[in-house]
Amino acid sequence: MTRTLIKHALASETAMDNILVEGWIRTRRDSKAFSFIELNDGTSLASIQIVADAGIPGYEDIGKMTTGASVSIHGKLIPSPGKQKWEIQVASIRLVGTAPDSYPLQKKGHSPEFLRSIAHLRARTNLFGAVFRTRSRLAAAVHRFFQERDFVWIHTPLITASDCEGAGEMFRVTTLDPLANNKNHEEDFFGKAAYLTVSGQLEGETMACALSNIYTFGPTFRAENSNTTRHAAEFWMIEPEVAFCDLEGDMDLAENFVKYLVRTMLDDQSGDMDFFCQFVDKGLRERLQHVADTPFVRCSYTEAVDILIKSGHKFDYPVSWGINLQSEHERYLTEEHFKSPVTLYNYPAAIKPFYMRLNDDGKTVTAMDVLVPGIGEIVGGSQREERLDILMDNIKRLGLNEEAYSWYVDLRRFGSVPHAGFGAGFERLLMFVTGVTNIRDVLPYPRTPGHCEY
Amino acid sequence: MTRTLIKHALASETAMDNILVEGWIRTRRDSKAFSFIELNDGTSLASIQIVADAGIPGYEDIGKMTTGASVSIHGKLIPSPGKQKWEIQVASIRLVGTAPDSYPLQKKGHSPEFLRSIAHLRARTNLFGAVFRTRSRLAAAVHRFFQERDFVWIHTPLITASDCEGAGEMFRVTTLDPLANNKNHEEDFFGKAAYLTVSGQLEGETMACALSNIYTFGPTFRAENSNTTRHAAEFWMIEPEVAFCDLEGDMDLAENFVKYLVRTMLDDQSGDMDFFCQFVDKGLRERLQHVADTPFVRCSYTEAVDILIKSGHKFDYPVSWGINLQSEHERYLTEEHFKSPVTLYNYPAAIKPFYMRLNDDGKTVTAMDVLVPGIGEIVGGSQREERLDILMDNIKRLGLNEEAYSWYVDLRRFGSVPHAGFGAGFERLLMFVTGVTNIRDVLPYPRTPGHCEY
Repeated sequence: MTRTLIKHALASETAMDNILVEGWIRTRRDSKAFSFIELNDGTSLASIQIVADAGIPGYEDIGKMTTGASVSIHGKLIPSPGKQKWEIQVASIRLVGTAPDSYPLQKKGHSPEFLRSIAHLRARTNLFGAVFRTRSRLAAAVHRFFQERDFVWIHTPLITASDCEGAGEMFRVTTLDPLANNKNHEEDFFGKAAYLTVSGQLEGETMACALSNIYTFGPTFRAENSNTTRHAAEFWMIEPEVAFCDLEGDMDLAENFVKYLVRTMLDDQSGDMDFFCQFVDKGLRERLQHVADTPFVRCSYTEAVDILIKSGHKFDYPVSWGINLQSEHERYLTEEHFKSPVTLYNYPAAIKPFYMRLNDDGKTVTAMDVLVPGIGEIVGGSQREERLDILMDNIKRLGLNEEAYSWYVDLRRFGSVPHAGFGAGFERLLMFVTGVTNIRDVLPYPRTPGHCEY
Repeated sequence: MTRTLIKHALASETAMDNILVEGWIRTRRDSKAFSFIELNDGTSLASIQIVADAGIPGYEDIGKMTTGASVSIHGKLIPSPGKQKWEIQVASIRLVGTAPDSYPLQKKGHSPEFLRSIAHLRARTNLFGAVFRTRSRLAAAVHRFFQERDFVWIHTPLITASDCEGAGEMFRVTTLDPLANNKNHEEDFFGKAAYLTVSGQLEGETMACALSNIYTFGPTFRAENSNTTRHAAEFWMIEPEVAFCDLEGDMDLAENFVKYLVRTMLDDQSGDMDFFCQFVDKGLRERLQHVADTPFVRCSYTEAVDILIKSGHKFDYPVSWGINLQSEHERYLTEEHFKSPVTLYNYPAAIKPFYMRLNDDGKTVTAMDVLVPGIGEIVGGSQREERLDILMDNIKRLGLNEEAYSWYVDLRRFGSVPHAGFGAGFERLLMFVTGVTNIRDVLPYPRTPGHCEY
C-alpha cells in the first residue's frame, strides 16, 4: 500500500477507509483503553492525531513509541472531534525505530542556540521544519519568477581565477597541502591560484550579451572573518543580468522580484507562514503586506544624503556626500523617513566598482540598492559600463590586470549593448520573509569562522 | 516602448503595427533599395528577418551593421513571404554597438575546440545558444519534477570537513597561502582542514529523516586528474533522498525521474531540440523516444555478470562476480543485450560504500545503477543501512573515524527509518538529451585539470 504524506491526509476532501501514514512521534498520551499519538512526517507543520485502541496489532510495543520514535500506521481517516478536520483510527501500528531517553528533542522547547548544536536533528522541530520547507518554497519561487519571464538559468563557475573586483575576500581552492613546502602555483590542480567565487556577475554578463535575459542562483563565498547574525562564509545568491536594459529597467525588475517573493509567501497556505507570524515575529505579516502593496520610493543617493543631514538624527557614522551609507542610515530612510521600501540610485563613483556605468555628471554611477524596513539593503545592482573607452580608463586608473579582464572587455568590443543586473542574497530574503534574525538558522549547515561541522 | 523578445515576435498570433526588437546581427545582405538582416537576441535558435529600406532613419550606419553588431529596431511585424511566418519591416534602425573585423564569430562555422577558446562569446552561436537554453530548461524540469512530488529542495553545504567516504578526491578550501610556511590547520578559517564536497548525500539523509522527501541540486567537485570527455572538476548533481523508502521505491523514483526529463525534452517546442537532432546527433530523437516509452529492465548484478560471461563477447576487462562493472560492460548490457534502459541492483558489498544496506545474503548491498543506451550509467543510488549495529560494524571494519560520523549514526539511534536515494550528474543528463559528447560543451565555463579560465 502506498504511503500518504501527512500534508495530503490533512488536506483530504473525503474520509478514507484505508490509509498508510509513516512518520515520527511528537507526543503520546495513554489512557486505559487507547492512546493518542501526534504523528509528524515533516511534510507539514501540523501533525495528525492518531487514535490507537489498546489491543490492535502492534499495540504491544506502545511503551517504546516515545517522542522521536518512528512508526508505520494503517488505519482509517475519519472526521476528528478536535481542532483538525481529520484524525486516524488505527487498524495496526508498527514500531519502526525507537528513540531512547537520550533523544535530545524531548517535548519541551529548545533554544535556537542549543538546536544549532544538533543541526542534524533540528529539522525535526516545528521552527526548523518550517524554515527549511519555506526555504525550498522561496527558492522555487525565485526560479518561477525568472523562468516565467524568459530568463535562462546559468550555472556560472564557483571555482574561478578572477575576483569580481572588490566584492569580498576569497577562499583559496587547491590540491596542494598548505602545510607542505610548496614551491609554486604551477603544481596546483589548475596550474595557477584558484578561488571560490564571490559573484557570478562578470560571467553572467557574457551570457546576457548572448541570450538577453539570464540569472544565476547558486552558492557564493566570502572568507570574511565576521561573526555577525547576517554573515556566513557560504550562502546562496541570485544574480539576474539583462541585455538592452538601463538603470530604470533594473530598478523595475528588482522591485517586481521582491514583491513577487513577498506575495508568494503571503499567499502561502502551508501553515508555515502562520507559524512565523505567531511565534517568530508578530509584525511579520503586516510588514510583508506593506512591501507587497507599496510602490517603492525612488530616491537618488544625493537626495538621501540631504534627507539624512537635514533629519537632525544622531547617527554613529556622520553623514556627508561621498560616504558609504551604513545600515543605520539605510534603516532610517526606509523605516523612519519614507516608511516604505526605497530604491536608492546614482551613488558616488569613487565608492563603487569599476564596472558600473558613469553618469553624465562625471561623478556618480548607475548603482542602485533596494532597502526594506526591518532589514535594510536586500538587493544591490547597477547598469554596467558598456562604453569601451570608459571601461578601459577605469581598469587602468584602478591598476587592475588588463589581461585578466580582456574577455570581459571583449563584451564592449563586439556588439556592446547597455545592460544591467543585480545581486540578492537568498538567505537575507529568507530572513526577511520568515522573521528569523540569525543567518545560522536559515542555512541547513551554516559555515562561519571556526565552524564547519557536519 | 517595450522591447519584444524575438521568440515572442516569431510566435505572435497577429501582425503588429509597432514593435521594438533588439539583438545582434547574424548576417546582412544589401541590394540597392534595401537590406535584409537576420537578427538574433538569444531567446530562440531562430533569428527574425528584418527588411530595411534604404533611406529609413538610421540607414546611414548600415555599413557598420556587420555580423555581431548590436542594433535596435522599430518597425512593423508583417507576414513574411519566406520560410518563417513573420518578418519585420523597419521604420527606424539604430546601431548600438559595432563589431569590427576582428570579431571571431564571422559567418563561417567553427569547431567546438575553437569555440571553447572563446567561451565568453560562444553562447552567441547556434549550438551553444541551444545548449545553454536547454540546460536551463532541463534544470527547471528537475525542480518541477521534485517540487510537484512534495520534495523539499535542500541546500547542503559545499564546504565540508567530512568526505562522504570514497566518492572521490577532494579540493582543499583554505585561507592559508599554500606557498607560505604554515604550521598547522588551526590557523585556517575553519580552525581545521576543510574541503569542497563530493556529495551532499549524508547531509541530505539528515533532512530526509526529518522532512520525508528531500532533494539537493547544486555544484559538486572532484579533484581527479582525469582529462576525459566525461569528467569535470566542477559539475552539478541532483541527489534526492526519501524516508520510508526501500530499494524498489528508489528504482521507481529514478526511472520516473529519467523518463520525466526525457519526455520534457521530447515535448520541447523551442526549436533547440530540432537543432540537436539535425546537427548534433541524428539518432537522438529515436533514442530518447525509446527511453521514454520502454519500461526499464531490472536485473540483479549477479544476473548481469552471468549474462556478460555467457555472451562470449570479448571485453577489455574480464568479467567475474565481484568486479566493478566497466563502461564497456554497462553499455553491452543496455545497448546489445537488453536493447533497453536497465536498472542493475544488488551489487557486491565489497565494492560499495559503508552506508549501503546489507542484503540478507550477507554479501550484496542494495545499490542500484540506471544504465541508458549511448551513455551507460546515468543514475546511481541505494537504500541506506538504517540498522545501527550493522552500520557501526561497517564503520569499525573500514577503520573510519567514528567520531566524525557520530551525527550520521545518530539518524539510526533516534527514530531510524528505512530510506533510500540516488545521485544523478546533471551534465551527464544534459549530454544524454542533447547528444553533445564532451562535458566541456555543456558547462558554461568548464573546470578541468589545468583549466580555470574566466
